[in-house]
Amino acid sequence: MLNAKNHIIPLTDYSISFIHSLEDIQAWLGSRNYTRIAVLVDENTRQHCWPLLEPFLDSPLLIEIPTGEAYKNLETCQYIWAQMLEGGLDRGSVLLNLGGGVVGDMGGFCAQTYMRGIDFVQIPTTLLAQVDASIGGKLGVDFQHYKNMVGLFADPEAVFIHLPFLETLPHRQLVSGYAEVVKHALIGDAGLWEELQSQPDPATVDWDKILPRAIMVKKRIVEADPLEKGLRQVLNFGHTVGHAIETWGLSQGLDVLHGEAVAAGMIAEIRLSHQHAGLPEGEMNRIVTFLEKGFPSMPIAPEVDLWSIMRKDKKNRGGQIRMALLEAVGRAKAIMVKPGAGLGE
Amino acid sequence: MLNAKNHIIPLTDYSISFIHSLEDIQAWLGSRNYTRIAVLVDENTRQHCWPLLEPFLDSPLLIEIPTGEAYKNLETCQYIWAQMLEGGLDRGSVLLNLGGGVVGDMGGFCAQTYMRGIDFVQIPTTLLAQVDASIGGKLGVDFQHYKNMVGLFADPEAVFIHLPFLETLPHRQLVSGYAEVVKHALIGDAGLWEELQSQPDPATVDWDKILPRAIMVKKRIVEADPLEKGLRQVLNFGHTVGHAIETWGLSQGLDVLHGEAVAAGMIAEIRLSHQHAGLPEGEMNRIVTFLEKGFPSMPIAPEVDLWSIMRKDKKNRGGQIRMALLEAVGRAKAIMVKPGAGLGE
Repeated sequence: MLNAKNHIIPLTDYSISFIHSLEDIQAWLGSRNYTRIAVLVDENTRQHCWPLLEPFLDSPLLIEIPTGEAYKNLETCQYIWAQMLEGGLDRGSVLLNLGGGVVGDMGGFCAQTYMRGIDFVQIPTTLLAQVDASIGGKLGVDFQHYKNMVGLFADPEAVFIHLPFLETLPHRQLVSGYAEVVKHALIGDAGLWEELQSQPDPATVDWDKILPRAIMVKKRIVEADPLEKGLRQVLNFGHTVGHAIETWGLSQGLDVLHGEAVAAGMIAEIRLSHQHAGLPEGEMNRIVTFLEKGFPSMPIAPEVDLWSIMRKDKKNRGGQIRMALLEAVGRAKAIMVKPGAGLGE
Repeated sequence: MLNAKNHIIPLTDYSISFIHSLEDIQAWLGSRNYTRIAVLVDENTRQHCWPLLEPFLDSPLLIEIPTGEAYKNLETCQYIWAQMLEGGLDRGSVLLNLGGGVVGDMGGFCAQTYMRGIDFVQIPTTLLAQVDASIGGKLGVDFQHYKNMVGLFADPEAVFIHLPFLETLPHRQLVSGYAEVVKHALIGDAGLWEELQSQPDPATVDWDKILPRAIMVKKRIVEADPLEKGLRQVLNFGHTVGHAIETWGLSQGLDVLHGEAVAAGMIAEIRLSHQHAGLPEGEMNRIVTFLEKGFPSMPIAPEVDLWSIMRKDKKNRGGQIRMALLEAVGRAKAIMVKPGAGLGE
């Protein structure tokens, strides 16, 4: 059904399709027998992306939510479920999530729990969501200032990646997403890392070439460990400290983008990788320099106790903190770390 | 690990164990390496069942919720998640649901969505939950007066059925649960139906013999169709009209037990079975007489439009109402029925 010229990454249960025209989504929907189509957007994607998709859909139900992580909560879920109910969505309906990570994670969660589960499709519109959030089946919302505390694992029916959506992004969003691209290179593709070093500015990257490679790293890991029992933990590189920074930022009312927190988290965890996982000092310095140059620094006061926030991270068992650290560029592993100092400079 | 004399029904992914002593739960937990054990109870099971289980658990976290379907909602879920978080439950923890259908459905949903899923165990304490709710993996809560509108499918790690808990039940609860036992016989075990006809009072039934047989009907159907794509719909016999009655009852603030609504629903659907599915008139009359004698009648005014409530039932696709009707005693099938009259007297 899909245009043969599109690049398609097949997964076990669904495919990630790089589509040049949104008409391909219409074709795919035509191959399914859905009773009703709903589209979840936020204020941004309603304005910038929805006008491009709308012509290809047959009287869809549009559900709009406010933009931002601050609305990734159960209250917004209740609004979404109510809209789905009011719009007459039944078990044979489908929800298309047109947006970034928040829209995809929350829309997927709402679809998967509406009437015990209807189909959903991810149409990621940010670089961050294209490279990361729309693959791997992690769905959910924040709860009591803890990220993704309520959620589940479930796969979409399909993921459609349309690169022109990246042109609608502010530069800051692009930089934020780039952090995940760098992360994928560092944990799983040393060759990609060498290539990225010559391309510090995401505005000039050739995404047609780079994005499929970065996604392949995640695909390989996720398929080997769909429920995060082991290997998949390496995807958390930069995220243990990064999530603590985000949690702290949320509690302070700061405007911190996920990728910005992850970049700062990677800097801390690269240092821990040198201390605990044998990453050579030269590599550590080269990576830290690249990250400090390409990403904004975080205004975290020294007295902020990120360790105590990390203790509540859902990857932990017992009292220690589970972290993914680098042994070398392209190779990560999960390590239990005792809470302590050593996060900062 | 379990006592060899216990009756155990093995399922694909977990077992239903009929245990004579709650010590068997302690033994089972000992064979697992859980970091923390939490127990969900309601006011009733805290009073009548928790004292029997507590001696066998090692410093568990007790979470208590109010009793009743009125509390089977997202607000209570948020209380449960908050308690789990505050109690330090991590991904290696387990939640034991000690109670009836509400505790099991909601506790399972909360466990399966806490940190994207922790283990849970069903310890059903009502007849209804023992025969029905704790098997089949349907979890969830009510939303905007619609039953189980938000939820998902997931299996517990284990189900423990301890028949002495039935002695803690008021007679009305026992009668309510008996409706599901009768339903299982009608849709899948004609021999069991003959046996039940000689035992109209659930207070005198030999549950050691009857309950495993009734559960086997559900087990057979659920395993053949875990996600309710087809066959499993026969389990909804009595429930399409029954849920509409419950939904209406909730909206009126009436105290209607699930089994009471299902019994009334079965009477309506037995009549529809004669009209639409070929159930002989003699069988219809015999079943209706049995149900009218054994279960309380519902005070539904003729002007209540149950069809319009059924239209929102999540089993529907498009405009028609999907119902499970009897072709004969012991044999049911799903049929699309056009909304119309014929529900009443």
